Amino acid sequence: MLLRRYLPFLEWARSYDRATLASDLLAAAIVTIMLIPQSLAYALLAGLPPQVGLYASMAPLVAYALFGTSRALAVGPVAVISLMTAAAIGRVAEPGSSDYISAALALAVLSGLILLALGLFRLGALANFLSHPVISGFIFASSLLIAASQLKHILGVDADGHTLVEIAPALAARIADADALTLLIGLASLAFLFWARTGLKPLLVTVGIGPRSADLLSRLGPIAAVVAAIGATTLFDLDATGVAVVGAIPHGLPPLTPPRIEPQLWAQLAGPAALISIIGFVESVSVAQTLAAKKRQRIDSDQELIALGASNLAAGFTGGYPVTGGFARSVVNFDAGARTPAASAFTAAGILLAALYLTPFLQRLPQATLAATIIVAVLSLVDARALGRVWRYSKSDFAAMAATIGGTLSFGVEAGVLAGVILSLVLHIRRTSYPHTAVVGQAPGTEHFRNMERHKVVVSPEVLTLRVDESLYFANARYLEDRIYKLIAERPTVKHFVLMCPAVNEIDASGLEALESINERLKDAGVTFHLSEVKGPVMDRLQRSHFLERLTGRVFLTQFGAMSILAPELTRRTLTAKPEPQFLAERKGLVR
Amino acid sequence: MLLRRYLPFLEWARSYDRATLASDLLAAAIVTIMLIPQSLAYALLAGLPPQVGLYASMAPLVAYALFGTSRALAVGPVAVISLMTAAAIGRVAEPGSSDYISAALALAVLSGLILLALGLFRLGALANFLSHPVISGFIFASSLLIAASQLKHILGVDADGHTLVEIAPALAARIADADALTLLIGLASLAFLFWARTGLKPLLVTVGIGPRSADLLSRLGPIAAVVAAIGATTLFDLDATGVAVVGAIPHGLPPLTPPRIEPQLWAQLAGPAALISIIGFVESVSVAQTLAAKKRQRIDSDQELIALGASNLAAGFTGGYPVTGGFARSVVNFDAGARTPAASAFTAAGILLAALYLTPFLQRLPQATLAATIIVAVLSLVDARALGRVWRYSKSDFAAMAATIGGTLSFGVEAGVLAGVILSLVLHIRRTSYPHTAVVGQAPGTEHFRNMERHKVVVSPEVLTLRVDESLYFANARYLEDRIYKLIAERPTVKHFVLMCPAVNEIDASGLEALESINERLKDAGVTFHLSEVKGPVMDRLQRSHFLERLTGRVFLTQFGAMSILAPELTRRTLTAKPEPQFLAERKGLVR
Repeated sequence: MLLRRYLPFLEWARSYDRATLASDLLAAAIVTIMLIPQSLAYALLAGLPPQVGLYASMAPLVAYALFGTSRALAVGPVAVISLMTAAAIGRVAEPGSSDYISAALALAVLSGLILLALGLFRLGALANFLSHPVISGFIFASSLLIAASQLKHILGVDADGHTLVEIAPALAARIADADALTLLIGLASLAFLFWARTGLKPLLVTVGIGPRSADLLSRLGPIAAVVAAIGATTLFDLDATGVAVVGAIPHGLPPLTPPRIEPQLWAQLAGPAALISIIGFVESVSVAQTLAAKKRQRIDSDQELIALGASNLAAGFTGGYPVTGGFARSVVNFDAGARTPAASAFTAAGILLAALYLTPFLQRLPQATLAATIIVAVLSLVDARALGRVWRYSKSDFAAMAATIGGTLSFGVEAGVLAGVILSLVLHIRRTSYPHTAVVGQAPGTEHFRNMERHKVVVSPEVLTLRVDESLYFANARYLEDRIYKLIAERPTVKHFVLMCPAVNEIDASGLEALESINERLKDAGVTFHLSEVKGPVMDRLQRSHFLERLTGRVFLTQFGAMSILAPELTRRTLTAKPEPQFLAERKGLVR
Repeated sequence: MLLRRYLPFLEWARSYDRATLASDLLAAAIVTIMLIPQSLAYALLAGLPPQVGLYASMAPLVAYALFGTSRALAVGPVAVISLMTAAAIGRVAEPGSSDYISAALALAVLSGLILLALGLFRLGALANFLSHPVISGFIFASSLLIAASQLKHILGVDADGHTLVEIAPALAARIADADALTLLIGLASLAFLFWARTGLKPLLVTVGIGPRSADLLSRLGPIAAVVAAIGATTLFDLDATGVAVVGAIPHGLPPLTPPRIEPQLWAQLAGPAALISIIGFVESVSVAQTLAAKKRQRIDSDQELIALGASNLAAGFTGGYPVTGGFARSVVNFDAGARTPAASAFTAAGILLAALYLTPFLQRLPQATLAATIIVAVLSLVDARALGRVWRYSKSDFAAMAATIGGTLSFGVEAGVLAGVILSLVLHIRRTSYPHTAVVGQAPGTEHFRNMERHKVVVSPEVLTLRVDESLYFANARYLEDRIYKLIAERPTVKHFVLMCPAVNEIDASGLEALESINERLKDAGVTFHLSEVKGPVMDRLQRSHFLERLTGRVFLTQFGAMSILAPELTRRTLTAKPEPQFLAERKGLVR
């Protein structure tokens, strides 16, 4: 049982048959072709040698096939994680040095250990701190950052930096040194790739290819660009004239790289590794869930943490760098018909073949073309309309999003995410600090109690009822006290105060303290304190304190019950009064 | 109008009459007598010369009288703020140096500016981040810390430190050097003061003094101890034999001390000043509210921030150090009959008289006696039973409290509060990350829908309804998605899914995104997605997004309405079935 929980492949492997094998093999072939240029490009983005990208696309995929619960997820190097890797290891080692590569390995190992720990202790909920506006703001800003960081390859100049504030002036200073041939290749690649995204599929359909195949083929545009660019470079000997190419890639199996224990390095990388783990997990699990839902399959988030942890450990032990589930390649895998994670293992085998036999052909691939594939891929993630949607829906969510974008562009990826997370927390606390409350009265002819500011209702001069539409916890306990004291101070005739709690899902120790203060202070002021419509679980918890013994009033099951006892005559008279037409209509479900 | 809002004294000054004057004068006289030893003792606790305590009890009281909204609050030096002051300025200057005193002034000015800013921008809600368990844990731990820090005066040895971890070994190392006479005075003072707290009042009542006067008189125990200790020191010339005394106190008016602009010092003190401001504000406003409620008076928290800000600025400009509203002295002020903040101003005048004419008598006061008054005062704040109450009521609140206590004792006051605040936030997010949800069904014979695990209800095989008992926001949006996909994956016959939202008070952008994902993924799985019982404000906000246009199903006003349309026959049959006796009883309000 335990084994089956932690090794989901035992489940699907039992019913693995020839038809499934055929589907998985086809999907793996297509994903392999797509993954070769991607893994080279993302290694370039991370500032690592190209073969590291290939290594990160072998062992991690096998690890995911063993531990993962998604049938279609394709793990490997992805753009955002590559950018974060560059930022993290760029601080502790010089790009190009062997320390830089071993820092990347250490980052993968650390990230793997963190993900494993989160999975084993079922702490996936930590990802909940990343609100949706923070994630989409982060994707937005880091995509812009990635695109900007690749412009140097298109121009053929040196211009490094981890923030837009660093990159933009560096590029501006070097723009006059741009290499004309490199620029030509870069712009041609960009133009072709943008067209392939939008124009290729309709063209393929026109020439008689079915829409699904056309869709898949059009996603292989980068391969066509890569092949054409290699061809042109070879034909015109462009690398000899100064066009930067990928260069010699060592061929062969990935190296075994047991991590060196370096406490100081690990301490420096722990923070970035944690952030990379959580962002990678959020990205991966949302892709996995989207694909699983299409077939009514289930994703187990805790097991996904374990699977991604195993993948990153595998990357760290075999010369790779941090990996996670990629969106584009998982969709291709799904659409190409992958039925089990075995497709992932077959993809790893495909990449291994490429590393063994294809590397000589790749060495004359211009970096400008790889940069173009990155730019086109990430710009498709930039969704400016999402900003408008969030702005219209909620200003405070927009503020968190804007803080993330501004922080990421100005101070880098880690600062951006932290700014967004902290602001979301502060704004959430602020929002729930001022809960919606309403003084309610009885709607004539009914047993209903409504907001007296919105409806024609009857209130008693001696009984004041306040409905609170939020759980009572530390952030709003004080506000509620304030509000009640103000109401009571304004109404000298009040003898009974009823707190109506139909939307109170929780009362924490601060909320309890507030209720106790209210009880004491109302007693001092000669007002009896009652509760009504308290939910079962909240009541259970209150019974574990001494509050109910000290309460000067009673706890009523319903607000109508409370008023029937506290102001019986008025309540009876109101019940038999002619109802407002609005309430009659509402009863029949005619109005909201 | 604006003037009256920011200067509340304009309100009460208009109706000030001879009777009010008499009451205020009497209260002021009693508070002055109480405040003289207190202000000396708390200055000692802050590591400052005794006259600084007196200065902090003059101008700040006048400032509060002008700006404050509480009629009974008595501001001045208090124990916890004195401890925090010692910790904050001990890091930037050597105790006993003139830099130490000017750092205390700078801290008061900074704290005043922060409080003023919070008040003017109405940001008092920042105090909401301090949950009740954090505050009471902080008071608990800092009281222990204060008591421990005063033991050196009782023993007559040197032993400094800002944490228990520092103080305990320092004391243990010096215990052999204890001065016998100092110890005798210290223990005698402690014994008398503890007895005065509990035994004096009954004694006074026995000898025929009325209970209210006896209560007031017994609170003046420290004065008796001080007078007796001065008498003994003078009589036996104890200070010549090595008993540490307060020493010469410069007499006269408080000095004018315009703050020096020292950006580096201010930057170092900004964090501690912010914490001192917020803790002082929370303490002060809760005392003020307790006293105001007894007379159905109102406290305006934002104006209180301004008043405390003015008080601290006044302290900083007149040789004092950070102040706030004190609990014990405010209660004495209230009980002694203070009717307006004028009592505060009269108290300031009393302290001024003391500073002018009483200081020669105070110079032979043993420090051991002052330390004893501090120890007895703070130990009365240590409420170990509160720990048990919080433990029984909520384990997560207890965790936040324990973190605050542990952090304060081991790493100091600032680390303790921060640890508590961060843990409360994390635990709050965690709690709301897994909201209570229930699959509901129709109770036979009724239009009610209840949790199918708790009640005998009827559910349709084709319509699944989940009630969620929490607002949907970033922390729980992902959990809800997970829960729904799992339910749907387990129930292949389901064609309609209804999310019942009677307790959803808010849906933020992450919640909206979750609903959109659910809608899309259920569509992929061939399930229609409906909502029911969505609250008005939540519906208003949803209408600002495109969600309702894309929703595959409908939004129903009531759950009964939803079922009448989605599973009409079953619903009708269930409505006409014989109701369970429990629901009949519940309807009549007989059971909870």
